[in-house]
Amino acid sequence: MRTELCERFGIEYPFVGFSPSEHVVAAISRAGGLGVLGCVRFNDPDELDAVLTWLDDRTEGRPYGVDVVMPSSVPVEGAPADLDRLIPAGHRDFVERTLLRLGVPPLGVDNSQRAGVLGWLHSVARSHVEVALTHPVRLVANALGPPPPDVIAQAHERGVVVAALAGRADHARGHVASGVDLVVAQGYEAGGHTGEIASMVLVPEVVDAVGAQVPVLAAGGIGSGRQIAAALALGACGVWMGSVWLGTAEYQSSAALREALLRAGSADTVRSRVYTGKPARLLRNRWTDAWSEEAAPRPLPMPLQNLLVAEAHTRLMASDDPTVVPMPVGQIVGRMNEVRPVADVLADLAAEADETLARLGTLSWRRLPPGSG
Amino acid sequence: MRTELCERFGIEYPFVGFSPSEHVVAAISRAGGLGVLGCVRFNDPDELDAVLTWLDDRTEGRPYGVDVVMPSSVPVEGAPADLDRLIPAGHRDFVERTLLRLGVPPLGVDNSQRAGVLGWLHSVARSHVEVALTHPVRLVANALGPPPPDVIAQAHERGVVVAALAGRADHARGHVASGVDLVVAQGYEAGGHTGEIASMVLVPEVVDAVGAQVPVLAAGGIGSGRQIAAALALGACGVWMGSVWLGTAEYQSSAALREALLRAGSADTVRSRVYTGKPARLLRNRWTDAWSEEAAPRPLPMPLQNLLVAEAHTRLMASDDPTVVPMPVGQIVGRMNEVRPVADVLADLAAEADETLARLGTLSWRRLPPGSG
Repeated sequence: MRTELCERFGIEYPFVGFSPSEHVVAAISRAGGLGVLGCVRFNDPDELDAVLTWLDDRTEGRPYGVDVVMPSSVPVEGAPADLDRLIPAGHRDFVERTLLRLGVPPLGVDNSQRAGVLGWLHSVARSHVEVALTHPVRLVANALGPPPPDVIAQAHERGVVVAALAGRADHARGHVASGVDLVVAQGYEAGGHTGEIASMVLVPEVVDAVGAQVPVLAAGGIGSGRQIAAALALGACGVWMGSVWLGTAEYQSSAALREALLRAGSADTVRSRVYTGKPARLLRNRWTDAWSEEAAPRPLPMPLQNLLVAEAHTRLMASDDPTVVPMPVGQIVGRMNEVRPVADVLADLAAEADETLARLGTLSWRRLPPGSG
Repeated sequence: MRTELCERFGIEYPFVGFSPSEHVVAAISRAGGLGVLGCVRFNDPDELDAVLTWLDDRTEGRPYGVDVVMPSSVPVEGAPADLDRLIPAGHRDFVERTLLRLGVPPLGVDNSQRAGVLGWLHSVARSHVEVALTHPVRLVANALGPPPPDVIAQAHERGVVVAALAGRADHARGHVASGVDLVVAQGYEAGGHTGEIASMVLVPEVVDAVGAQVPVLAAGGIGSGRQIAAALALGACGVWMGSVWLGTAEYQSSAALREALLRAGSADTVRSRVYTGKPARLLRNRWTDAWSEEAAPRPLPMPLQNLLVAEAHTRLMASDDPTVVPMPVGQIVGRMNEVRPVADVLADLAAEADETLARLGTLSWRRLPPGSG
C-alpha cells in the first residue's frame, strides 16, 4: 500500500519504525520502512555521532531519521550536580527502601551510569539535533512537541523533515503553526510519553485538524497489519511504530527484559510519571506497583524524576529479574509472543495490512473498479 | 457494507445503537440499525414493560434489544434502607459540602428520585430480563459480563441472542465459555463502564480470542464512518455505539446537558469510580474534579456509590448548570457539535464508512476485482 508518505521519503511501506537501537533502525530502513533512532540515551554527542556514522554505512543509502526529546517548556536546567540538589531526601529514601524490598542488588564498582539520562535536558537534546544534521538524516522528530524555531529552521535549510508527536488536536494545530512538516498523532495506548486520548478518537481528530496541511501518522497500539489498515481508515497516511520492534532479534535486550516482554499481556502496562516525571506508559511490574502504593511519594517533575531513578533503573536492569525491569512499552506488548528478525516482522505487517485493505474494499457497496482511486 | 451481523438480525447496517432513551432506540431500529434500550434506569419493572410496549409499536417490526447491568459478583444486596446504612457519614458529608461549594441548590418538594438507581442490583437487573423476554426483543446484552446460566438459558429458549461486553480478551473467552452468543469488545475510550485497554489493541485481541466462535462488535471511540471502517479493519463484524446518540434530536436532554455535550472536547472526559463504584468514563466537570481532589474520599463499591450520589445526581441535573451535569460519555464527545435526527446521523455514518472502505480497497496492491471477496 503506497501513500504520500512513501513518495515523500522514497520508502516502500508507509511505516516509520522508532527504536533506541541502531541495529533495529538499520534493519527497518533496509527492509523498506523508515527507521528512526531514539537519541535520548546519548549523554555524549560524540557517541551519537559515532552511532550515526555506523547507521550511514548500514542503511545502504535508504532514508532514516532521528527522534529527540525536547520539552517545549524547560522548568529546570543545569549541571547534574546542581539538579541532584533539588531531589528531596525522602524521595531518595523511598527509592533505596523499595529496591531493598524488591531484592534488587546494589551495583558493582562500575557506577558509570550514575549520571542518568540527560537527553531530557533541552541543551542535550539540542546537541543531538546538531550532530544529526551533520549526517544524511531525512527526518528529525520531537517527542514533546515542536522544536524551537531555530532548530526547525536549521533542519529545513538542510531539507530535513521535522515531525512532532501530538496527543491532542489543539497541540497538533500548534505544531503545524510552528512550522512542523509532519504530525504523529500518538494515542493513549502507546508506549513511553503519552496522553489520555486513545488512537481511535485521536487520529481522525488530528487528521481533521491538520491533515489538509501536513501528513499525519498514527502511533499507539499498532503492531499488526489489521491495526495498520485501521490507522489508514482513520485518515492517517502511515503509521509510527515503536514497541513492536522490542520483540525483534535485532533488539539487543537482556534475558530478563525479553522474558518480561514475551510474558506481558495487553493489560500489563501502566501509564505513570515514575520514569521521567511526565506520564509515560511502562511495563507494569513490582517496581511500578511500588510507586502506586499509598505510601509512595509523588514523582518529581522532569528532568528530576529520571535523575532520581537513574541508578535504580541501572540496578533494576542489572538484577536480571523479569518482574522489575523498567521499560516503556505500549499496550501492543500483548501481541509480542516470539522473537523474530525485523525484516520478517515488517513483511508480515505489510502482507496483513494489504490483505485487510483488499478485504475492506470488497465490503463497500461501491466496489470501486481497480485503479479508480 | 453488509456483514454477518446484518444477516443475523435482518438489519441494513452492522450498527448496534445503545441508548437509555426509547425514542433514540426506536429511531435507530427504524433507520436500519439495531437499537438497544439501556434498562438500568428502570427501578420499576412495570415501567420498563410499558416502555417496551411503546417500542414494540414504534419499531415497526424492526428488531431491537435491551441492555441490562448484571454484575457477575454481587458484593452487597438488599433493600435500599439496608444499603443506606452501609454508607459512611463522612462520604455523605463530602457530597453535601461539595454540592454547597459548587452552588447546586437542594431539591424541591418532589424527592421521588431519592431511591437512586437500583438497576445495578442483581435482583432488579434480573427483573429487567424477565420483562424483556415477554416482548419480541432480539438481543439481551449485559454490560458487566455474562448473565447467570439460567438467564442465558431462558433467552436461548426464546431464540434471543445474548451479548456481553468485554474489556479484556480473557474475559471474552470466559463469556463465550458461559454461552454468550456475541461479544462487544469495549475499549478504554468508551463512555460508561470501561476497562483500560484501548479499542485499537482490544478489538483484534478479542477477535483473535473468540472471533472464530462468535461475532465480535467493536465499542468505544466510534462516532464517524472512518471509525466504523477502522473497527471492521480490526476484525469486528460491526460496531456498538452509545455516546453518539446523546447528540441527536430524539435524545430528550436538558438544556444544560446538551450545552455540556456540545461544548466538550475529546479531552473533557474522565474515567472514574464516582458514578457507580466501578470505573466509568464520564463528562469531566466541576463535580468529577471535586472527587479527584486530595481531600475527597475514595468512592464506595457498587452499588453503594450510586446510592450515595443518587440524590446529588438529581440535584446536579436539576441545577441546569452545564459545568456540573453527571453524565457517562465516551471520548468521541469531541465530535458532537450539532443536534441532528438519528436517521441523518446514521445515514452519514453509513455513507462515510462506505466511502472509506472503497478508498481503502484502492490502496491494496491486490485491488481485488469486484465480487471476489
